Amino acid sequence: MASQFPSSLFLPFQESSSELAQYTRLFRAFQQAIINGDLTPGAKLPASRALCAELGISRNTVKTAYEMLHAEGYVETRHGAGSFVATNLPLDTVDQSEDQAQPQAQVPPKLSAMAQTLVGVRKPNQMKTGELLLPAQPCVNSFPWSQWQRAVASAGRQMKYQQNSVMGNSQLREQIANYLRVVRGVKCTTDQVMICSGSQQAMFLALKLLVDAGEAVIAEDPGYQGIDGAIAAVGATKIPAQVDKQGIQLEDGLQQAPNARVVMLTPSRNHPLGHTLSLDRRLQLLQWAKRNGSWLIEDDYDSEFRFEQQPLTSLQGLGGQDVVIYTGTFSRILHPGIRLGYMVLPELLLEPATRAKTYMEGGTSILPQLALAEFMSSGHFASHVRRMRKLYHQRREILHSAIDARLGAQLSLIPSDGGMHSVYLIPEQWDDRRIRQLCEARGLGIRDLSRYYTGQKRTCGLVIGFAGYSEAEINTGVDRLAAAIDLYSSE
Amino acid sequence: MASQFPSSLFLPFQESSSELAQYTRLFRAFQQAIINGDLTPGAKLPASRALCAELGISRNTVKTAYEMLHAEGYVETRHGAGSFVATNLPLDTVDQSEDQAQPQAQVPPKLSAMAQTLVGVRKPNQMKTGELLLPAQPCVNSFPWSQWQRAVASAGRQMKYQQNSVMGNSQLREQIANYLRVVRGVKCTTDQVMICSGSQQAMFLALKLLVDAGEAVIAEDPGYQGIDGAIAAVGATKIPAQVDKQGIQLEDGLQQAPNARVVMLTPSRNHPLGHTLSLDRRLQLLQWAKRNGSWLIEDDYDSEFRFEQQPLTSLQGLGGQDVVIYTGTFSRILHPGIRLGYMVLPELLLEPATRAKTYMEGGTSILPQLALAEFMSSGHFASHVRRMRKLYHQRREILHSAIDARLGAQLSLIPSDGGMHSVYLIPEQWDDRRIRQLCEARGLGIRDLSRYYTGQKRTCGLVIGFAGYSEAEINTGVDRLAAAIDLYSSE
Repeated sequence: MASQFPSSLFLPFQESSSELAQYTRLFRAFQQAIINGDLTPGAKLPASRALCAELGISRNTVKTAYEMLHAEGYVETRHGAGSFVATNLPLDTVDQSEDQAQPQAQVPPKLSAMAQTLVGVRKPNQMKTGELLLPAQPCVNSFPWSQWQRAVASAGRQMKYQQNSVMGNSQLREQIANYLRVVRGVKCTTDQVMICSGSQQAMFLALKLLVDAGEAVIAEDPGYQGIDGAIAAVGATKIPAQVDKQGIQLEDGLQQAPNARVVMLTPSRNHPLGHTLSLDRRLQLLQWAKRNGSWLIEDDYDSEFRFEQQPLTSLQGLGGQDVVIYTGTFSRILHPGIRLGYMVLPELLLEPATRAKTYMEGGTSILPQLALAEFMSSGHFASHVRRMRKLYHQRREILHSAIDARLGAQLSLIPSDGGMHSVYLIPEQWDDRRIRQLCEARGLGIRDLSRYYTGQKRTCGLVIGFAGYSEAEINTGVDRLAAAIDLYSSE
Repeated sequence: MASQFPSSLFLPFQESSSELAQYTRLFRAFQQAIINGDLTPGAKLPASRALCAELGISRNTVKTAYEMLHAEGYVETRHGAGSFVATNLPLDTVDQSEDQAQPQAQVPPKLSAMAQTLVGVRKPNQMKTGELLLPAQPCVNSFPWSQWQRAVASAGRQMKYQQNSVMGNSQLREQIANYLRVVRGVKCTTDQVMICSGSQQAMFLALKLLVDAGEAVIAEDPGYQGIDGAIAAVGATKIPAQVDKQGIQLEDGLQQAPNARVVMLTPSRNHPLGHTLSLDRRLQLLQWAKRNGSWLIEDDYDSEFRFEQQPLTSLQGLGGQDVVIYTGTFSRILHPGIRLGYMVLPELLLEPATRAKTYMEGGTSILPQLALAEFMSSGHFASHVRRMRKLYHQRREILHSAIDARLGAQLSLIPSDGGMHSVYLIPEQWDDRRIRQLCEARGLGIRDLSRYYTGQKRTCGLVIGFAGYSEAEINTGVDRLAAAIDLYSSE
């Protein structure tokens, strides 16, 4: 009789999702009861006639569930005697009672060293919707949505005829190679361009090809936290090299790690200070790399947004074809969700990079690649960059004027030609972390400069985004910043 | 005078891409000459008037190029005397003559151990266009393109309002969680679902979280080469565990590596044999994992394509919520270019996985995620899977009949309920690699079974795809296979 079973046994059946067929729900209720030990090996299952009456379901439902239990090996049938819980299942310790969160392990579960390290890495900046003056926020409203949508619709149609390729879609690779040759003086063929998920994946892959766990990678201090994260993700150690107005100081890094063989940097603009690597330092880095069989990973961050001068020729184009891995992204220029970037690989790395991407990711989705290729080939990308360069230049002036007017006595601008944010120094002894907290409470995305440092020597300041905000928003933001600083001064 | 300079100096100017402004081309010609040493420090640049006459360009072009050279630090102006190559540039060894492929390094450039290992991993199967009977080729022609295109167009419109999220788009994650709960008995909330680039990235990330370089990972032998590649990509060692009709033999793996703490497997169907992991073995694996603080990475490969029975409940759903990382992909079911997959993470791994994806990739492109979410929520995905299950079942029968009729005496089928390919054993002493070569020469994508093995014990056979081919194509393919085998027998 069904009544010999605890009624709780059928709770999972009665409560489970109605999306499931009744027989599946009944099957799973028995399955769980058997695995939990609520039904022990050898126990007799209720007769199907009795059970269907008790649960108010059809006999066929019960029979199908029993057949499934039989097919999967949970029950055995004894001729004429009914169905019994199988006696040969190794069930003794598989305990899955729902309220027991952790398994009863004799040994605690272990994570990789990398996983343990990563959890310790400074958390990525969280974007909160509606925050003002957040750095790295492009002007999404100015994005040419109708042209983009046409490119996307076309991509949906073309996708049918496309083969998947780990290196990326050939049309997009060709567009990127042309763009980089013309605009950044990069020396490359289409074959050297690999499509990645943003520059983040490009930097990670590049490091994976060059560095083993425990090795040293020299990087700018302060620097981009995506670089710190990529270094941590390969299990390498970041050697923080100080940055001055000419950019990264290689000697500072080499003093700490004379055997380092990889430098990772953003020569067009140090992040977040905005200093550009000088020609002298560029030549010096290339020399060092060529002499020592070393590598430079050049993330050409923000080269698009120089307002007064042309950006300097890339390290790669300055004679670095064999020692530079050049990376870039479209996510900052177009839309944070686009997640497409690229790297330009020296010949020597083409084969290992293809293998690595094959096994670490399998290839980037074709759809956004086709859309972007179309968007670039029809000229929308180039004209969008031009328009944004102009717009961001204007917005920077608006921010600078507003701060001069309201906070000129306390904040002092670090000069830089371009970008999507500006950095201001604060009076000595002021604590930028505290100011950041006060800003956050007022809906501001302003960041504390000191958080971008790895080494002991830190400068305090404020990193203030302007690219994504209208004149009114910038002024509101500066008002709130002034209020936060007033409060800070009175604390 | 300009004539004092070798005319070759201006070749890069005259030959370079006309996409570039003339002044940029001229600037780059001088830049290259200075870096190459063709123009030495202190050398006087030609007067702009003379140069514009010689090259037949406007004086403004020359002046702009000279200003750029000055701004970037390549030349210095002496008042009234003209422009000179800067004397303070550290130029001695930056040699970038185009015909010198490798830099003159005192130390040869070094790759990571991982990069060196990966190049040694068995090459991924290359798809050649038009090959018949290739395994893992879905029926792209049956894909509902018009519904897909509508979903894509809608994604292009929605994208504007989407925030980027490393875990993936919440609509898609919810669709996947619902699907897995209902169809695969997976026990998860939407929060546990992470969107990845195919199952390949999911498997790599899972391994990165659990295994350090040098550690052992038990995996099926024969097995999926994407799994072997992921294991190599994290620098771990694959311990090949033999497979029988009940699936992976855990003891075989543990005998070779008693301390292994991770098993990676495809329980629904061993690749390529097609054996399903039995209930006994499932329970045994779960028990082992729970007792030892070990992990199971369950790639639920081909669970969608069981033709006669329902697939067995996933390991994750069988009480493995805390010890199983469950992975899957849409690339096999829908289109190879879609490159979207997922993993279901135990609570303990949520934070490390988020960090790892942030720094290794930065997040998957939103566009295909939005399209797929729409495609699933409007029911097209579920009905496509149902249609393909029916179609592939029919196509399998066509293949089996054709082989029975033509090659029944030589080939013997390994029974398996489902999938997109079938495996046939060949007579002992036959060499499947040689047969594969003969097949390849006839435009067949048939694979040799022995290539899927890592250990010493290998079975020879043929892996024959049917899913992507019409009845006529299958029959043509089997004709060609018969011809190849005829030739092999006569060799």
